[in-house]
Amino acid sequence: MSNSRSQDRNVAPRITIRIDLRNGQIGPGKVRLLELVEQTGSIRQAAAAMKMSYRRAWLLLQSLEACFGVPIVEATTGGKQGGGARLSKLGQGVVTAYRTAERGANRTGLKALKSLPRARNRK
Amino acid sequence: MSNSRSQDRNVAPRITIRIDLRNGQIGPGKVRLLELVEQTGSIRQAAAAMKMSYRRAWLLLQSLEACFGVPIVEATTGGKQGGGARLSKLGQGVVTAYRTAERGANRTGLKALKSLPRARNRK
Repeated sequence: MSNSRSQDRNVAPRITIRIDLRNGQIGPGKVRLLELVEQTGSIRQAAAAMKMSYRRAWLLLQSLEACFGVPIVEATTGGKQGGGARLSKLGQGVVTAYRTAERGANRTGLKALKSLPRARNRK
Repeated sequence: MSNSRSQDRNVAPRITIRIDLRNGQIGPGKVRLLELVEQTGSIRQAAAAMKMSYRRAWLLLQSLEACFGVPIVEATTGGKQGGGARLSKLGQGVVTAYRTAERGANRTGLKALKSLPRARNRK
């Protein structure tokens, strides 16, 4: 417990964001999943990396596609595994928009947070 | 249902943020509570405006104070109700930091979101 606290100390404060669309949400989990699909070229491997079932990953991707009415992941053919997945232009754009907004929040917010009054380094 | 959808259409997309501190979180609910305490001068009225119990509001404020080790709400004396509550300097700073980061996220993120490919105005 005290060990995880001291690890947290290095990363906090941190700002994460959630994007509310008309008919769905984009949060850190879905964006991480998209990034892992792009990195691994496989929905199955991306799901495994996030310790979630293939079905859950697939449903998350489906829910994103439903928001936009445009495919977010495309099938690739060939390769060692005989085909896989990669992000569509929309999928890449969602990741970029999310990470851009997240950087914007951190850039403007962390400075304000650091200036807050706070009890001196409690152990 | 279709009515609430068409109302949502006017506000989305919208970006909300969450700030992770070493030992707690600041999200839209806590910040709204702080703003209402400042507006109403009363934890009880702020809680009622958010349809939450006084106890729940009090615990949320306590959890925020515990993050900083500094009071987030101060008691006021006198007035019609015989005393109430107002935000401390820390409380005001938390609201400012949160809303600043939120604006930063929306400013940078919404432009990127609007450029995403999307099926044409589905009804």
